[in-house]
Amino acid sequence: MELIEGNKIAASIIAELKTEVAHIEGRKPCLALVRVGDDPASVSYVKKKEKTAAEIGVTSRIILPPVTISQAELEALIDELNADETVDGILVQSPLPQPLDELAIFRRVNPGKDVDGFHTLNLGKIAQEDDTGFASCTPAGIMELLGRSNVDLRGKHVVVLGRSLIVGKPIALLALQKKAGANGTVTICHSATANLPEITRQADVLIAAIGRAHFVTADMVKDGAVVIDVGINRIPDESRKSGYRLVGDVEFDAVAPKTAQITPVPGGVGPMTVAMLMKNTVKARLLGPHI
Amino acid sequence: MELIEGNKIAASIIAELKTEVAHIEGRKPCLALVRVGDDPASVSYVKKKEKTAAEIGVTSRIILPPVTISQAELEALIDELNADETVDGILVQSPLPQPLDELAIFRRVNPGKDVDGFHTLNLGKIAQEDDTGFASCTPAGIMELLGRSNVDLRGKHVVVLGRSLIVGKPIALLALQKKAGANGTVTICHSATANLPEITRQADVLIAAIGRAHFVTADMVKDGAVVIDVGINRIPDESRKSGYRLVGDVEFDAVAPKTAQITPVPGGVGPMTVAMLMKNTVKARLLGPHI
Repeated sequence: MELIEGNKIAASIIAELKTEVAHIEGRKPCLALVRVGDDPASVSYVKKKEKTAAEIGVTSRIILPPVTISQAELEALIDELNADETVDGILVQSPLPQPLDELAIFRRVNPGKDVDGFHTLNLGKIAQEDDTGFASCTPAGIMELLGRSNVDLRGKHVVVLGRSLIVGKPIALLALQKKAGANGTVTICHSATANLPEITRQADVLIAAIGRAHFVTADMVKDGAVVIDVGINRIPDESRKSGYRLVGDVEFDAVAPKTAQITPVPGGVGPMTVAMLMKNTVKARLLGPHI
Repeated sequence: MELIEGNKIAASIIAELKTEVAHIEGRKPCLALVRVGDDPASVSYVKKKEKTAAEIGVTSRIILPPVTISQAELEALIDELNADETVDGILVQSPLPQPLDELAIFRRVNPGKDVDGFHTLNLGKIAQEDDTGFASCTPAGIMELLGRSNVDLRGKHVVVLGRSLIVGKPIALLALQKKAGANGTVTICHSATANLPEITRQADVLIAAIGRAHFVTADMVKDGAVVIDVGINRIPDESRKSGYRLVGDVEFDAVAPKTAQITPVPGGVGPMTVAMLMKNTVKARLLGPHI
């Protein structure tokens, strides 16, 4: 069993981006980070993104509207950022507090600045294999992890657990593309799937993205499979100061010995998501907003 | 074995639409049909669409640019139709002759008039389960065929053969939706799939859309499966005046006895595509162009 070290791979990408940004003449890429309210997880995610941006030489602009902001006010804020020629990428930290309409906000972002890849048009572009769009960061990060771990999906059976818009559907579309490294046969499973273990046991590459701690057990995994664990779940742990620890969707200790390669949680997919956000921001700076 | 009679089901939909259109006050729905050049298959498809429109009470406007039209001229023509408030739907008959850029033309159509459902935004909306968009006609027709034949995909394994933008990818996304009738577990196979028969034999519902005559043989199909044959292939037949006949992607005679339900070719999916085009056109008239 070989560990797919997301931290190391993300660090290489960040180093590459740093060099790339150093060579950009004139204005450096700028990422606007919009965080509504003070949800602790959101605070920590935005902090991490800001820190990584600084490391690369990407300017970040932090915007912190109060939790009471209205839909119309938030849309007006997005419109301003869309119009601002010094802003290359716009990220609205998810989840937005109720009653804000998250999908409407994601669609308000100029698709050419949608570095999170949540806009309808960018989702459609993944299906169309059009590289002028932005693939959402977690699925794009998974493809990078696989590619840099020498996992070629061609002729492989890729089983995706979860049909979310943020991970399940876009990773299925990416794995299916005709590009080098992709060309996988893809199955998408979810809460309504019957005989789930029978299907997951066929996976040469199993991607777990359902958000349930330790859902994937050893009997669900084929010997020699590659396992990508997208889950980030908090479970109580009295031995920690915080009172909890983070675990994935995969029962790592039991599953890992059966696999050829597996990602840990934390330190697997997570750091890749931030790295790909930065990659998209640099791409947005180079492409310009008019896609 | 029960035959899924596309002709009959399409006729019911057309009858429903006729009633719906009769109740529309004011201007009747109008479909612009753009056919570039004189490809015989395109001529016959456009004729069929025109005839069905007339039957329903949908106005059609036939536009026949010469095969020599430039990309810029064709885009200008689309822009005119986009701006024309008396046009609800725009269909550009595929395939466009070389060297026209078909995808660029499809994207030029106002998404709110894109009754063919080929625009990037409408593809993304299927993934987002947003019903304000237009699902492309063939996959939408397949979902209707299944629904009206009492095939509920929930808990079923749906295997799609083919990853095209027009059929394979959108039908996978539709089958996967959380709506009543959908919720299928979906596998997408294609030219790079290994052990294809092993996968197709797991299908409770097998959708063949690869465009190869008689590709699906009896040994690839499970007893009691539902088989949807999207293929329309010409094979030589000296007993016909035309010198050819149309066959599907499925070896019908050998496969049909094993199935619970199967579509014939012709008379299966084909007529549904035209019916769904009309359904989208009526929807466009009712929604207006501003989606």
